[in-house]
Amino acid sequence: MPGNEERTQRGRIEDIRERGFSDRFSVEKATDWVDGHSTKLTAEEIYVSEAAGRVLAENIEAAEAIPPADRASSDGYAVRSEDTVGAGDYNPLDLAICECDELPPAAATPVVAGAPLPRGADAILPFESARAHGAALEIFGAVAEGCGVEREGQQVQAGAVLIERGRMLLPQDIGLIASLGIHCVHVIRRPRVRLIVSAPKSHGDLCPQGNANGPMLSALVARDGGVVEAMVLGTGQREEIVQALVAPDADLILVAGRTGTGWDDEAPLALAETGELQIHGIALRPGGSAGMGVVGTAPVLLLPGDPLDCWSAYEMFAGRLLRRLAGRYRELPYPVREAEVGRKIVSAIGITDLYRVSLVDGRAEAIGSAESGGLASAVRADGFVVVPAPLEGYAPGVRVPVHLYRAADASRT
Amino acid sequence: MPGNEERTQRGRIEDIRERGFSDRFSVEKATDWVDGHSTKLTAEEIYVSEAAGRVLAENIEAAEAIPPADRASSDGYAVRSEDTVGAGDYNPLDLAICECDELPPAAATPVVAGAPLPRGADAILPFESARAHGAALEIFGAVAEGCGVEREGQQVQAGAVLIERGRMLLPQDIGLIASLGIHCVHVIRRPRVRLIVSAPKSHGDLCPQGNANGPMLSALVARDGGVVEAMVLGTGQREEIVQALVAPDADLILVAGRTGTGWDDEAPLALAETGELQIHGIALRPGGSAGMGVVGTAPVLLLPGDPLDCWSAYEMFAGRLLRRLAGRYRELPYPVREAEVGRKIVSAIGITDLYRVSLVDGRAEAIGSAESGGLASAVRADGFVVVPAPLEGYAPGVRVPVHLYRAADASRT
Repeated sequence: MPGNEERTQRGRIEDIRERGFSDRFSVEKATDWVDGHSTKLTAEEIYVSEAAGRVLAENIEAAEAIPPADRASSDGYAVRSEDTVGAGDYNPLDLAICECDELPPAAATPVVAGAPLPRGADAILPFESARAHGAALEIFGAVAEGCGVEREGQQVQAGAVLIERGRMLLPQDIGLIASLGIHCVHVIRRPRVRLIVSAPKSHGDLCPQGNANGPMLSALVARDGGVVEAMVLGTGQREEIVQALVAPDADLILVAGRTGTGWDDEAPLALAETGELQIHGIALRPGGSAGMGVVGTAPVLLLPGDPLDCWSAYEMFAGRLLRRLAGRYRELPYPVREAEVGRKIVSAIGITDLYRVSLVDGRAEAIGSAESGGLASAVRADGFVVVPAPLEGYAPGVRVPVHLYRAADASRT
Repeated sequence: MPGNEERTQRGRIEDIRERGFSDRFSVEKATDWVDGHSTKLTAEEIYVSEAAGRVLAENIEAAEAIPPADRASSDGYAVRSEDTVGAGDYNPLDLAICECDELPPAAATPVVAGAPLPRGADAILPFESARAHGAALEIFGAVAEGCGVEREGQQVQAGAVLIERGRMLLPQDIGLIASLGIHCVHVIRRPRVRLIVSAPKSHGDLCPQGNANGPMLSALVARDGGVVEAMVLGTGQREEIVQALVAPDADLILVAGRTGTGWDDEAPLALAETGELQIHGIALRPGGSAGMGVVGTAPVLLLPGDPLDCWSAYEMFAGRLLRRLAGRYRELPYPVREAEVGRKIVSAIGITDLYRVSLVDGRAEAIGSAESGGLASAVRADGFVVVPAPLEGYAPGVRVPVHLYRAADASRT
């Protein structure tokens, strides 16, 4: 790749405006760059009640066993199981009701689920299997030892790790942590993301990307666990972009627009001027004019201004970087389902193509080509198929993995 | 079902405390009740930028075509394709660079993606395939008619419905709507959910459900598109529950705790006193003491106090009700994947069992029984399997649908 060498030897980036990319980086190289520039952020302490969706930064251990002592696991009468042997609808037996901590033989104590067992009791007879007559209890069923009883430590042993660090917390995790009497937990802090969005280019209403990219990227950043630290809307002048790049306090900077090879594509030069532009031009469709670099310690991703290209480059690179900063699972947050290809999907060797597809009778049908259709094609689709660089495409009938936007689509068979 | 008849004939609910459920409603009946008591809420108007995850209450149409006129879809030189025929690395051709609205023969105009085409131009030659020498342009490649050009209406025809009402908005939907110049959209308003949570029962530290259920239910409500209108923490007295039930303005009321057959299980009686208790006792494990009814027009779900039972009853009934109010897809928001059963899963005919399972070498291994293991079993699991009432369980090796908590687990093959 002569162009790359040239860039490296000269120690600075070429101005490729109105010249074009002399070469492009592979998606694999760009992904390696992402993984090399995204270290999990530090932890912060927050309330458990606000921790759903956050990534745990410490192990949660059980200080004591759950339950800490033998207890009833259902409502009913605590009994000695041996006293119930032979009881049935046609052979009721009589016990004495006794509100006591120590159960005498042939007696029963009403308990609710969660209550400690009276000493001597070893099973719970459901209320349905008995009828009280004053202090006498007629029982219509037998219970085996241990029935309706939960033993000390049966759910969790004291000292056991209940939830491991690194886990993105689910609602039931929040419940379990709260049940341990823990009020605050350490979680990875949310990445602060700066969005620098250039307004539509100056040819009338033809290019609405400035309007589209700001709200779309905000929603994507929120999905991947980040918080928008600032949204800088500008006209795409180099000075403006430079100023927005050098401000402190961002963990990740996304520059949307002005990344291509036109005369007004100032974003790569602004990044080269402020920090380092390390990758520009990727063998990806759509999204090929994306770039990567750093300003200080903050990774900077250049995302193309066309909304479909912007979305594609975000999904392929920015989302992964953000999820890694947030400590989340780095792969795309979509369920994957195998489906047969409908009409042929065409690609070029050396280029990674992201095809939006609809599921039609269970088959993946491409919507337009990799580059056509605009953002509307990503909206109309049920998901997408990524054709790796070494392939020329997929023939009809080939089974391919489809990234599906919605869990519901992944469930249909 | 004699018990049901009795309830209906007497027009009021029995006090089943310390008697037990004489019969239980099927999960199917309870689900029908949920579907019969959950009508999609009305719409409200909000900013597009805040609409991700909300459900659209109107169709979004394209007022004009996208693009509204022929335009360049990539950076490069706008040319007449016929002028490029035969050009190649070993046969460069010469064109004249011309900044013009009407392209003369043998000329080329530099354009950026999104710019309108000069009249006469019918293709875009990438910058990489040309080299400028002052006003002269040497070209090294040919382009076919239409290459790099996007025709009027190619993405979207004027008047087309781009996004249909009822859709839960994805980030790319937000981008597309914003790109149309639409700033506000009508979406289904968020259901207001009141949580009435009873503190642990009065036997020391054995029952932490009061601590667990509040934060867990808050996280589940947020996941399913609701907003917690009020969280009422009480000690489980009937008066307290009654007071919290009659307050206005909730779209859904969840009462957690005090739903069972013990002496202190006041929630069903509080609901019967304030409104109507229509279902109590469900043939479900865990979560069988759940109940359903109404206060005024608000549906009320009684969820058991044990955190595992509470979680199970929420997932089986409350979440569905909430998603329907919010206009979302009503089924469980988990991807489903088929897996082979590992160790035998035991159920009883007539009872629906929710087994938490781990995926071990691709097999679904039950964690404890349906009722044992506490909330820790739901935390340790990768998802769950629902055994329908007519089945006695699943034999090892049978393929069953597993509801998976995480998209990533659904992607592994």
